[in-house]
Amino acid sequence: MNNIESLSKQPYKGTADIYPLDMQVREYLFGTWKKVAKKFGYEEYDAPLIEEAKLYKVKSGEELANNQLYSFTDKGGREIALRPELTPSLARMVAQKKNELTYPLRWFNIGRFYRYEKPQRGRTREFFQLNIDILGVDSINAEIELLQFILTVMEELNAPKETYEIRLSSRALLDYLFDKILKVNEEIKGDLSRAIDNYLKMEKSTFLDYIKDIGLDKKQADDLIDFLQWDIEKVKEIEEKNKGIKDLIELFEQIKKLGLSNIKFCPYIVRGLQYYTGMVFEMYDIGSQENPRSLFGGGRYDTLLEIFNEEQLPAFGLGWGDVPTIDYLSTYNLIPEQNVDIDVFLVLMDASASADVFSLAKRFRENGIKTRMQLTPSKLSKQLKYVAKLNIPWVAILGEEEIKNNTVTLKNMSKQEQYELTVEEAIERIK
Amino acid sequence: MNNIESLSKQPYKGTADIYPLDMQVREYLFGTWKKVAKKFGYEEYDAPLIEEAKLYKVKSGEELANNQLYSFTDKGGREIALRPELTPSLARMVAQKKNELTYPLRWFNIGRFYRYEKPQRGRTREFFQLNIDILGVDSINAEIELLQFILTVMEELNAPKETYEIRLSSRALLDYLFDKILKVNEEIKGDLSRAIDNYLKMEKSTFLDYIKDIGLDKKQADDLIDFLQWDIEKVKEIEEKNKGIKDLIELFEQIKKLGLSNIKFCPYIVRGLQYYTGMVFEMYDIGSQENPRSLFGGGRYDTLLEIFNEEQLPAFGLGWGDVPTIDYLSTYNLIPEQNVDIDVFLVLMDASASADVFSLAKRFRENGIKTRMQLTPSKLSKQLKYVAKLNIPWVAILGEEEIKNNTVTLKNMSKQEQYELTVEEAIERIK
Repeated sequence: MNNIESLSKQPYKGTADIYPLDMQVREYLFGTWKKVAKKFGYEEYDAPLIEEAKLYKVKSGEELANNQLYSFTDKGGREIALRPELTPSLARMVAQKKNELTYPLRWFNIGRFYRYEKPQRGRTREFFQLNIDILGVDSINAEIELLQFILTVMEELNAPKETYEIRLSSRALLDYLFDKILKVNEEIKGDLSRAIDNYLKMEKSTFLDYIKDIGLDKKQADDLIDFLQWDIEKVKEIEEKNKGIKDLIELFEQIKKLGLSNIKFCPYIVRGLQYYTGMVFEMYDIGSQENPRSLFGGGRYDTLLEIFNEEQLPAFGLGWGDVPTIDYLSTYNLIPEQNVDIDVFLVLMDASASADVFSLAKRFRENGIKTRMQLTPSKLSKQLKYVAKLNIPWVAILGEEEIKNNTVTLKNMSKQEQYELTVEEAIERIK
Repeated sequence: MNNIESLSKQPYKGTADIYPLDMQVREYLFGTWKKVAKKFGYEEYDAPLIEEAKLYKVKSGEELANNQLYSFTDKGGREIALRPELTPSLARMVAQKKNELTYPLRWFNIGRFYRYEKPQRGRTREFFQLNIDILGVDSINAEIELLQFILTVMEELNAPKETYEIRLSSRALLDYLFDKILKVNEEIKGDLSRAIDNYLKMEKSTFLDYIKDIGLDKKQADDLIDFLQWDIEKVKEIEEKNKGIKDLIELFEQIKKLGLSNIKFCPYIVRGLQYYTGMVFEMYDIGSQENPRSLFGGGRYDTLLEIFNEEQLPAFGLGWGDVPTIDYLSTYNLIPEQNVDIDVFLVLMDASASADVFSLAKRFRENGIKTRMQLTPSKLSKQLKYVAKLNIPWVAILGEEEIKNNTVTLKNMSKQEQYELTVEEAIERIK
């Protein structure tokens, strides 16, 4: 053999091998996303996994664009990156065909992403994410529709209502905090945003030290702490309301009117991405301590097309990762039982019968029956043991007698009964 | 705006943006693959898209491992690569759990791959591929099952029988050619394999010059040309037959017995990958000149697990790319018409009705109806124009009158009829 070096059997750090039963779990989640997205009239699209690295330098924010980016130079000297998120690619695609598309766009994608992170619970270097976005709707009806979408997915996943909460605020309110309450300089807004984003994760004293270091005085710190306790009634009391703040108030009125549950106004919701311009939200597990970070989030990003020198296009969307969601489903035992999905097993005891068994398999499959066939002849008892292990409901046996009679013996594994039937009858019975 | 450099709206070279209607084409192909794979009792799995680069250095062959590999160093100094094919990852996964798995394994995956190539028809740098493999079956029944799988997919895709052909040979026969007919040295076997692999693509005189340059004398060249015309009857005449050659003969006997069509013995089929050990095949478009290269291929690779210092495990599989297949479908007009897949459109004329319309949308969706809702109030005529453009079959209107009567007006767009119905009746009618 020419294996000069020893090869590792383990996957690359922060990635996972998905064996068939685990794949069923992922497919259950992806299938639910897809089914609900289609019920909401959203269309599936896809973008490349490789993009020019500079696409992320403009608006994704420091963390994503530099520290976490898998970027490299291709053999032709192009600076490229594995996408850490989809929104910049979406913006690029929309900018490219801006005048040919019919608005609003309702698009979704389920794809792979890469971030160079320290692997830990809920965080991997390779992950999948549902991206679902609506482009071309200025009003809060875009937010309502996608909040309905999220709640429908949670219902489809049988998530108990007391275990999750969507926490929502608006960048417009953050601007109001910075400019009208704290009156801070432009330079410290970034650091202050990050501090607020981490508010829940810190002890109060640590938080106070942190914002003091950033440059807030005692009065500002008190005002900030007060702001972080606001409820939506306090937002209504703001005198000079801009559109962003009015939208936030109206959104919570509509949420109430429509009876949408599990959505809470939380002024400390900020999100890390730079390009958000309005509403921002995150989903939390509130029923356990096992998933302390947000499960996923999203927001409004009305100005992202400007990076391509295009006019603004109102946009709202979210990125919903697979890893924290599967952790959440597992926390609450919401993952359906995994089974090999086969309707019937075709026994092969003698090589001379293989052509007949192959033909029977063809007949079954033509009738939509999921058929697995023994390929290496062996004893019946051994094959039945395999069938029992895999929990396959039916077994079809084609012995000399059956081939002569043009029949098949069909065995029901749970009832332990068997019948000699014509192929047509067997197909009916299995179905 | 802080866009220092101008950003390109085009995707990275050799990759493609997939807009929703194109996505339907891809989903049609992927859906067909998946449906047939499940009918054959195959289980879906997945492997990371990033692997250690050296995984490909051992057995994938020069072309893939060096010239075409997207490899780079991660921030932690690991040499990694974007996978150019799946089989080495599959071998790694199987080696990792060799003693826990129940054989035979029947696994499939549909995923993305990367090869640094000059983009051209049928070749892109980013592409998708179905990988379907059977591991643990030594006999040609593995080949039969997967050939049946391919033919079933072609039938499901409505491919006309006169437009495609599976060309099949065996590495065992190639070894026989090298060792017993030509009696060439080990060193020139690689070059000679590549020459034979390109036999069909060259003029005869070019081919003769080529093999002369490799080192074949006149007699050897004549013998090679003779060999390349062999049919399966000539293979039967070989005196000292090893298992590989016996299997090849038996395979074509079974193919005849089972009436499998569109499969031809072609001694020039070699395949580029180093790890093949037995049967190798390629699918060709034989009805047009538009897709001159093979559409896809596969083979037997019984020794691949040895690169992980594990015992051999018989294995047969194939990799079926999306790009050449979609080209082929398009050549023969086999791509179904693409339409936005929405059952009903909900009109919104007045913002004050939005809560009622949102509630109606929820009812429809709960009943499995694909529902798109107008989010920005506008004139009815404008919304109907949009519905006509998108070919949506039903429109639901909720005016003041309907809200008062607890009804909905349902409009059939093709018949241009409308009815005032209860929501239950409307749901029934749409279904």
